[in-house]
Amino acid sequence: MSLSFEHVTLGQRVRFGSGQAAGHLSAEAERLNAHNVMVIAGEREMFIAEQVAASVEVAVWHSDVVMHVPIETAENARQVALENDVDLLVSVGGGSTTGLAKAIALTTGIPIVAVPTTYAGSEATDVWGLTEAKRKTTGVDAKVLPTTVIYDSELTLSLPVEMSVASGLNGMAHCIDSLWAPKADPINAALAGEGIRALSQGLPKIVADSQSIDGRDEALYGAYLSAVAFASAGSGLHHKICHVLGGTFNLPHAQTHATVLPYVLAFNAPHAPEAEQRAATAFGTDTALEGLQQLRAQVDAPQRLSDYGFTAENIPQAVEIVLEKIPANNPREVTEDNLTQLLTAALNGDDPATLN
Amino acid sequence: MSLSFEHVTLGQRVRFGSGQAAGHLSAEAERLNAHNVMVIAGEREMFIAEQVAASVEVAVWHSDVVMHVPIETAENARQVALENDVDLLVSVGGGSTTGLAKAIALTTGIPIVAVPTTYAGSEATDVWGLTEAKRKTTGVDAKVLPTTVIYDSELTLSLPVEMSVASGLNGMAHCIDSLWAPKADPINAALAGEGIRALSQGLPKIVADSQSIDGRDEALYGAYLSAVAFASAGSGLHHKICHVLGGTFNLPHAQTHATVLPYVLAFNAPHAPEAEQRAATAFGTDTALEGLQQLRAQVDAPQRLSDYGFTAENIPQAVEIVLEKIPANNPREVTEDNLTQLLTAALNGDDPATLN
Repeated sequence: MSLSFEHVTLGQRVRFGSGQAAGHLSAEAERLNAHNVMVIAGEREMFIAEQVAASVEVAVWHSDVVMHVPIETAENARQVALENDVDLLVSVGGGSTTGLAKAIALTTGIPIVAVPTTYAGSEATDVWGLTEAKRKTTGVDAKVLPTTVIYDSELTLSLPVEMSVASGLNGMAHCIDSLWAPKADPINAALAGEGIRALSQGLPKIVADSQSIDGRDEALYGAYLSAVAFASAGSGLHHKICHVLGGTFNLPHAQTHATVLPYVLAFNAPHAPEAEQRAATAFGTDTALEGLQQLRAQVDAPQRLSDYGFTAENIPQAVEIVLEKIPANNPREVTEDNLTQLLTAALNGDDPATLN
Repeated sequence: MSLSFEHVTLGQRVRFGSGQAAGHLSAEAERLNAHNVMVIAGEREMFIAEQVAASVEVAVWHSDVVMHVPIETAENARQVALENDVDLLVSVGGGSTTGLAKAIALTTGIPIVAVPTTYAGSEATDVWGLTEAKRKTTGVDAKVLPTTVIYDSELTLSLPVEMSVASGLNGMAHCIDSLWAPKADPINAALAGEGIRALSQGLPKIVADSQSIDGRDEALYGAYLSAVAFASAGSGLHHKICHVLGGTFNLPHAQTHATVLPYVLAFNAPHAPEAEQRAATAFGTDTALEGLQQLRAQVDAPQRLSDYGFTAENIPQAVEIVLEKIPANNPREVTEDNLTQLLTAALNGDDPATLN
């Protein structure tokens, strides 16, 4: 089989170390020769941001962070950056905070140092998003890719265990789905495999001890890789299904991903032997499904879509919408019949192995 | 164990596909909006370069390529580029050709599209080298990193099997040594693991059939990853030893690397369980040494340094010089005694397992 792919590697510096965010930020501000730093953090994260930026001279603190980056919020923040001659944006927070920094960078070109406090992953991509009149616009621009990401797992210690697990399993879904996504290639597959390995080792440690730095480190590192792999490979079958379940049926994001993943894995794996082997190797189990199910048992993952308001009556409509969105390269042909079987099994929490 | 590292990912586009170089180059020239293309290829590769650039309007063909990039050669080529208002450099060839393109980019900032015909790996790094008055200067500069690399394994079909194997094992040495090199981190380790996997699968196929596109694909892809991992992680114990053997005792580069590698692996592996596991997993064998030795047997790798002019009398001097260069983070303490044992075993071709 001849190897053919196009892979874009995004250039970025990652500084990773528990308890080291303040030191790393100070070193980065110096390396980037920054004199007018704008620190962006929501009200609830401002206390963390103050500690992280303790050794940096900050020109302006900005806490007007709103989910989904409304255009008014973005334009106000751009104004603040320009008025203060800002030459470095430091975002401390989750996806909305990183998103606001990206919105500023998009029009000003000011570099970003991102300090994530969740597993959102936006810091590892060149994708921006803005909401105008309730409509979200997204785009890709090299200017919004953070120059440096500073990962400090101490900043994630306050992330509740349940949210860490949900977010971590969402990262796992990014990794596994990227193995057969439209732009899947061996490089993003290798990074996805490393993400699977790290998440499968880290999440059970967090469940066993919410303050485990070891577990928090591995989960944060795995979440970073899941973002890199997903941004590179694109949305596969799993994400197409989950977007419909969330968008049309209002099922909760994290739980939907966590529930559906083993069914898509069981559905596709027999038709994607390389992906299956990569994931199994990363889990350290005989089959990928075995590894995923072991992990799901360890972290007490959600079991069935019926627990989240999905019903058997919804399935025909879900099937109809999903069928229009199937990636052309999905390793297994998706039909009304087998997709109905997949969703029925996920609805009821049946053993995914029955889909093989 | 807390995870702490700094990793710099170099941003680069890779287009990989057998028989697709001409199409990929034409697409890249268009994407980069290039109007004055300078194609750089040595006399022997000019025929290949003409085919690769068949669909591109070329402003100037440049064939004055000299090994180790003498400064006069570089300055002449820079002059040619400036006189022709060149806006894209296309290098077609091995390390010296890529090196000349980098020398031009260093002072002019003109972007490079590299089309490698060997496993040299320079195309994946931001390292440049120039030779002035027989002294080689090297440096690191973002400007010399090729914007795009086009890999086409058909261009490597004329690389003799013996040279492919030697060069491929050199890539394997980059991968394995990067697992414990000074800047080793989980990201470059994951890429090194992928490189080990690809090289160990590809090289035996080339030995079995020199025209195997499958084998050539895997070896070329593995060589690319070995360059990425090595550039990121730096030189470990293996490279320190081989540089002394080559520099002071004039042993041949590729054979020295191929011979010494199993001894360094056997020496370090018991003290580096994570590296050992990663390499073993990549080889698909119980231990890393088993995987490497299986591969070496399949490709008929060189066995002992005594075949290349090294003698027992050279060992004390080699030990003395190498001891000054041991990376501080090498997983096993290196002493006069155990280094003497290592070199003695490599000299005689003893079973590396005796070093454990």
